[in-house]
Order: sequence, then C-alpha cells, then structure tokens
Amino acid sequence: MKGVTTLKHSKVPEATIRRLSRYSRCLEELDERGEKVVSSAQLAGKCAVNSAQVRKDLAYFGEFGIRGVGYYVKDLLSDIKRILGSNKEWRMAVIGMGNLGSALLSYKDFLKQHYKIVAAFDIDPPKVIGRVSEKLGKPMEVLHISRIKEVAKDRKIEIGLIATPPSEVQGVADLLVEAGIRGILNFAPAQITVPEGFVVKNVFFTTILDNLAYLLSNYRPPQK
Amino acid sequence: MKGVTTLKHSKVPEATIRRLSRYSRCLEELDERGEKVVSSAQLAGKCAVNSAQVRKDLAYFGEFGIRGVGYYVKDLLSDIKRILGSNKEWRMAVIGMGNLGSALLSYKDFLKQHYKIVAAFDIDPPKVIGRVSEKLGKPMEVLHISRIKEVAKDRKIEIGLIATPPSEVQGVADLLVEAGIRGILNFAPAQITVPEGFVVKNVFFTTILDNLAYLLSNYRPPQK
Repeated sequence: MKGVTTLKHSKVPEATIRRLSRYSRCLEELDERGEKVVSSAQLAGKCAVNSAQVRKDLAYFGEFGIRGVGYYVKDLLSDIKRILGSNKEWRMAVIGMGNLGSALLSYKDFLKQHYKIVAAFDIDPPKVIGRVSEKLGKPMEVLHISRIKEVAKDRKIEIGLIATPPSEVQGVADLLVEAGIRGILNFAPAQITVPEGFVVKNVFFTTILDNLAYLLSNYRPPQK
Repeated sequence: MKGVTTLKHSKVPEATIRRLSRYSRCLEELDERGEKVVSSAQLAGKCAVNSAQVRKDLAYFGEFGIRGVGYYVKDLLSDIKRILGSNKEWRMAVIGMGNLGSALLSYKDFLKQHYKIVAAFDIDPPKVIGRVSEKLGKPMEVLHISRIKEVAKDRKIEIGLIATPPSEVQGVADLLVEAGIRGILNFAPAQITVPEGFVVKNVFFTTILDNLAYLLSNYRPPQK
C-alpha cells in the first residue's frame, strides 16, 4: 500500500469515508465467497455506486490495484481497514439503558465488525439488569454511571455510545471526556461540546427523516 | 420566500439538507424563547457551523433575510420547513418489533417534529403486543406484516422504518413498495433495491462507527 501514511487525511470528504466503509463490507462478502480479484466496475456494481467513484475514493489514499486486472480482494480489504482504523478491536460502552441502549447492546453487526461493547451504564442500574439480561440471552451487569472513569481504564474503553434522554447528554459527555474516552457516538437529539482531541458523531434519527422527507417532497419523475 | 419552487433541488448537497434540518431545530428553540430576529452569525454560533456556511446553504433556495438586520426567526423557520417538507405531518410505520423497533416506537423526538408512527408490524405480532404496550405506556396493537398493504392505505402511511434482521430487509422493502409507501428508513445493515420514485435512507450504526474510528485513528494534534 503506497501513500496511506503520507497523505493528508483531513482533506478526505466524509462521504468518501462512508463509501470506504461500504466497500469494506462488499469486499468481505467477496472474500467469504472465495473471490480473489475484483474490477472497479464489479466492486462498484456490488456497492451500488459508479466505478469512477470507486477509483476516485481510493485515489485519496494512494494507488491500489493493477491496470487491466483489478484489485486483489484480500489486499484491498486489508488496506481499507487500515485506512478506516477498523483493523483493530474497538472497545465500547453504552450509556443509558432504555429501549435504544438495550437495542445497541444486542446489535449483532457491531461485533461482526470488531466493535465490542464491554460495559453498560445507567443512572439507575438495579432496575435494568433483568431487562438487559433477558434480551441479550446472557447477563451483562449494568453499572452506575459514577463508575465510568474507573471502568473505562480497567476495560480500555475508547468509544462511548450515548443513549440517554437529550437533557442528560452533555453531562454524560463531560464524564466520558473526564474518563479519557475519546470517541462519542451520540444518539440523543442534542448537540454536545467536547474539548479538542475528542470526536463526536451524532446519529439523529429525526435529521435523517428530514432528509428523507425532503427527497420525497422534491421528487420529480424523470422526463420521458 | 423567493426561488424555492423554481430552483433545481437535485443539485443541493446532502450535507446542506442535513444542516437545514439543524438550522430548523435551532430556529425552533429561538422562536420558543420569543426571539424575533437572528443574524447569520448568531444562528451559526448556535448551530456550531460558520456563518458563511449558513448563508451558502440558504442561497441554494433563494434570498432570505435582510442585509444589516438578519433573518426573521418565524419566517426563516417556516421557509426551511417548507423546503425540507417538514411543514406537514408524515405518517409512519415501524416494521420489526425487536429492541430497536420498540425503541423507535417510543422515540419522543419524532412526534415533536411531526413524524407520527401510526402502525407497527411484525411477523409474529401476538408475542410482542405486551412488550410494546409496557414501554409506550399506552397500547399500540402490533399487526401482522401481511396486513401492511391494507393498513398503509387506511392510515395513509408514507414512510416505513425497517428494524428487522438484515436477512428480511429486502422482502419487507418489497412489501412497502407494493403498499405504495414511498419512503424507507432502513436500520437493518443490508442494502435494499427499490424502483424509481421510492427513496431509501440507510441508518447503519456500524458505518457511522467506522467514520468515528477513522477520525480517532487519524487525529493529529494541532501544531503549536
């Protein structure tokens, strides 16, 4: 892999990173099926993008593949995972054990992709142990949020998934920052402020619905 | 509001639409507080973007605000809602009553923004009625998925939220298409194909985590 360590990643559009993640999934499927080589057109077809886009996205990170042959599936997969940082296990905590927090705890796709939930927190843990255990099939002790700093260190937690009510989200984010948990995936519909060096990604369902509503409202049938 | 109906919406970047949704939330808060006028700098500060970005985003849709004064809060809010299509009630169904589906049923921010869940479906409804009722505080009958076409018509459902296992998602999408439900928000980590005129938005938690992992892996402290 050429170039990956020398290029300026900060210039890479977010949409490119999202597509790399998609290419990674598609390449995994190809690899599982025993495919050795894939052309950019085949990869593009599988991922529902156009092949020029695939080449453009990869070009941010160096030169991949062999002209006239395509990409070696295993090599490209490994390169993309290294770029994304998904070639390692990320250890995560869920904060807030309501419906959504419980759903996150039992979300199978995380583990498949090396995102491992190693702790669950709530402000009222005794109430929820039973509920979570029942859903997971195996018990996971829900801890009181006040223990997060100690547990984050012991269990090497790097990412926190916040699934509390919106009113609690900044307070929880402050605790995560204090515990040195650098990555936050925030599901509660409220903006968070964190210091330099910490990263927040919001997953606001209503914002995504707004986007869908916009596309539905502004759809024009193609001219015949 | 000038221009909104004549501009080519298809050229508007998705990131702009996402930010419009954020501006809309900020404007609502300002309106609730009784603010009449807001400058682009104030709106930008509140939404954590820069003010040039606010002006650029709005410029896609015409001219808003008054030079040297700013924007009238109520007017801009109403214009943005019209642009987004969020000035009407959208009637939705949730399909798949596992943890995530239950979480979506009780997600308070939807209703606040005029997204109303009017039906819930599962392949095994009797099992889940109790669970959903308990969580919602009020009972919502979970219906068998086979009834979706009839119910979609009766209850004027326009958007389906899919929260089934990934293996079921294309089958469910086909049923939604057959029922004339044009918008799909897909939470199951699998790609869907729909005919022209239908719109799918994916919410893949793992893809968003990939993005977060990328930012964490590639963070470089600023040069002093």
